[in-house]
Amino acid sequence: MTPEQTRALDDRVLAIEQALSADDLAATSSLIADAPTHEVVAVIERLDARRRAVVYRLLPKQRALEVFEDLPASLQGDLVDALQDSEVAAVFADLDPDDRVRLLDELPASVAPRLLRGLPVDERTLTAAVLGYPQDSIGRRMSPEYVTLRPSVRVSDALARVRSRVRDAETVYTIPVIDDARTVVGVISLRDLLGGADDDTVGALMSEPHTATATDDAEDAARLCADLGVLALPVVDSEGRLVGILTIDDAVRILEQEESEDAARQGGAEPLRRPYLSTPILRIVRSRVVWLFVLAVGATLTVQVLSVFEDTLAQLTVLALFVPLLIGTGGNTGNQAATTVTRALALSEVRTRDVWRVLSREVRVGALLGLLLGVLGFAITGVVFDLPVGLVIGLTLLSICTVAASVGGVMPLLARAIRVDPAVFSNPFITTFVDATGLVIYFLIARAVLQI
Amino acid sequence: MTPEQTRALDDRVLAIEQALSADDLAATSSLIADAPTHEVVAVIERLDARRRAVVYRLLPKQRALEVFEDLPASLQGDLVDALQDSEVAAVFADLDPDDRVRLLDELPASVAPRLLRGLPVDERTLTAAVLGYPQDSIGRRMSPEYVTLRPSVRVSDALARVRSRVRDAETVYTIPVIDDARTVVGVISLRDLLGGADDDTVGALMSEPHTATATDDAEDAARLCADLGVLALPVVDSEGRLVGILTIDDAVRILEQEESEDAARQGGAEPLRRPYLSTPILRIVRSRVVWLFVLAVGATLTVQVLSVFEDTLAQLTVLALFVPLLIGTGGNTGNQAATTVTRALALSEVRTRDVWRVLSREVRVGALLGLLLGVLGFAITGVVFDLPVGLVIGLTLLSICTVAASVGGVMPLLARAIRVDPAVFSNPFITTFVDATGLVIYFLIARAVLQI
Repeated sequence: MTPEQTRALDDRVLAIEQALSADDLAATSSLIADAPTHEVVAVIERLDARRRAVVYRLLPKQRALEVFEDLPASLQGDLVDALQDSEVAAVFADLDPDDRVRLLDELPASVAPRLLRGLPVDERTLTAAVLGYPQDSIGRRMSPEYVTLRPSVRVSDALARVRSRVRDAETVYTIPVIDDARTVVGVISLRDLLGGADDDTVGALMSEPHTATATDDAEDAARLCADLGVLALPVVDSEGRLVGILTIDDAVRILEQEESEDAARQGGAEPLRRPYLSTPILRIVRSRVVWLFVLAVGATLTVQVLSVFEDTLAQLTVLALFVPLLIGTGGNTGNQAATTVTRALALSEVRTRDVWRVLSREVRVGALLGLLLGVLGFAITGVVFDLPVGLVIGLTLLSICTVAASVGGVMPLLARAIRVDPAVFSNPFITTFVDATGLVIYFLIARAVLQI
Repeated sequence: MTPEQTRALDDRVLAIEQALSADDLAATSSLIADAPTHEVVAVIERLDARRRAVVYRLLPKQRALEVFEDLPASLQGDLVDALQDSEVAAVFADLDPDDRVRLLDELPASVAPRLLRGLPVDERTLTAAVLGYPQDSIGRRMSPEYVTLRPSVRVSDALARVRSRVRDAETVYTIPVIDDARTVVGVISLRDLLGGADDDTVGALMSEPHTATATDDAEDAARLCADLGVLALPVVDSEGRLVGILTIDDAVRILEQEESEDAARQGGAEPLRRPYLSTPILRIVRSRVVWLFVLAVGATLTVQVLSVFEDTLAQLTVLALFVPLLIGTGGNTGNQAATTVTRALALSEVRTRDVWRVLSREVRVGALLGLLLGVLGFAITGVVFDLPVGLVIGLTLLSICTVAASVGGVMPLLARAIRVDPAVFSNPFITTFVDATGLVIYFLIARAVLQI
């Protein structure tokens, strides 16, 4: 969007919000009626639960369904709580099977069976198929509605078949080619089909299939789809038989959600899983408080380390002045390394067994950074205070940077190796660890150099 | 990919790397010949510049082109340096115009005109059109090769036209509909075209167009494409005339690159813009050293603050023990808020003019977190040390958490308002700021409570 378009959107959103604040339902209703679906979604994502239900009820039926489909599953769940049973049943029947399953995950367990019973038989079967796969697997996020072709079919017949199925399938742009056992033997893009001669067979035009297995982690499958740059990825069961299809727009949504989770965890918080402005304050507190406690408890280690060196501190108060600078620099160096390696892991540029390569790189990077900062620190502190103190600061910076970069670089790989999200051993975690280690290094160097 | 597939890929990559280390070119060559393109790309992304060129030269011509296309532009640039002019000219002519422009951006200015002169005339024109837009604009990343339709065309004729153009266009799945002035009046998906009756007109089936303007920021346009869930977005000039098309796979690539840049900046480093393992050590040092210096200089503020309170410290060394814990907790609280708000900004859930709403939320979140931690800190410190010190720690935690969450939440919005990447006012930056502020708060409270 151009800045003007953004401003125009902002103005419309603002107008709707003002009408709502003034409880002017007539104005709200007419403003909403004129706005495109994605703007209504943007407005709803900024409201609290009560107003969200108000806006939703003002929408005409068909628009309401469109808006509902585009909301995050967490907000869909909130809305369902506020709607009547008959309204819920209508919305539920209209969703795609994969979206339906995501909504079910958000609802209390008692509600799900009732909703499922209300579905037409064929829709219920499709939904049950998706529901059968483990949480966080791509089986849960794939669409069970697809078109298939056989290798022996001629292009003209294939196009006719695609045209007849165009309304039911989630996508017709990438078509899995299967044999009699439903094993995926190839994929053909609609584009290749259109580019072929009428008498060519599908088998002659199709290409080698990339597939995901239904029990694969959803993020891995979505990343594969994005990396291959394909519009859809067939999903197969453990015997290679087709069970669904993952489209690129669903893959983008999965990746976006994963990025949000990674970002939250790197900041030392649990993911909110709903838009910021529509999240109640207490839920935000809850998403942060556990990690904050854990880190604060971890930080009591620094109190203990300093207690050990309390005599040294009392003798030479000047040492206390540099504590925040030294551990801060260590934390920053560790964060830089951790962030780089975590991202490289997410993009599959680095794997767990590269741990020695990463360590050897980060030791060198950390030592070089420490050397540069150490020389500067020595010079400045040597002039402002005195040379021995300068030497302590310089040597400490060199050591802390080397240790911090190594720890920060290796930690995400260790996390992955023990199957924990690398972002959980996150920047705040590394900072806390480096703080305690850095203090020990600092006081040991100070004692050695200053002979106290 | 399943864990087994990942391991299999790892094993093949490892085998190729071992053959390379042993300088066994015959083995390398046959291993590469059997590997699919995306595995060769994965291998090349892990090698240093010399070996990269070796592997590339071992590829048969057609495979080499496929691999080249899938490499990040930075590695393409490195490779071009290592290849002969005639090889470069062949590769260059084969790229899509948008990929060509990205490669040109990586090359020395003297090389670009020579390469452009070597192109066939029509390709040169297309490339020049893309080159004409500002860096980081979507005009640079769009494809100028598209199919268009007129509203009056019948479905059967439209399908025939699409079929005839299927080989040249970047995509045929989303087709812009234009009038005589080339203004975009609608878009029609190939799916809607296939679902229509032969006698329907394009105008009757097309839907309202969402478009991006060529001078828009590439990230904004890519985000719009992903948010709308469309497979392609028409790109128009300032008068609304069609100039190109952005496909979802290019949008995904743009967003992925932006996420990497955001991640790096939030970790307080400049983006590497190339895969981690193939980046030379000195380049990694360069990406980190500037921010590390800036932050270290900022941290000298903490030295100054502590100097001011040096007498208080000398009187009561016990106060020094809590410095890392208190400023660490402040930093963590600030990071949590900053990360949440930065992500919400990236997803357009929050806008700059929401600054008061964000501030009021973060003050409350910070105060609640501070209350919880403060009570705990008061109790523990009161027991382990004494009650007055416990009171100082408790009150300081309450104040620091409130200030840190507010600063952390508002900082990204201020950055956006002055048109700086919110990730630049990043977690390390906030930590440094909160460190200094936190120390002042701590010593003022200590002086007041302990009467020193």
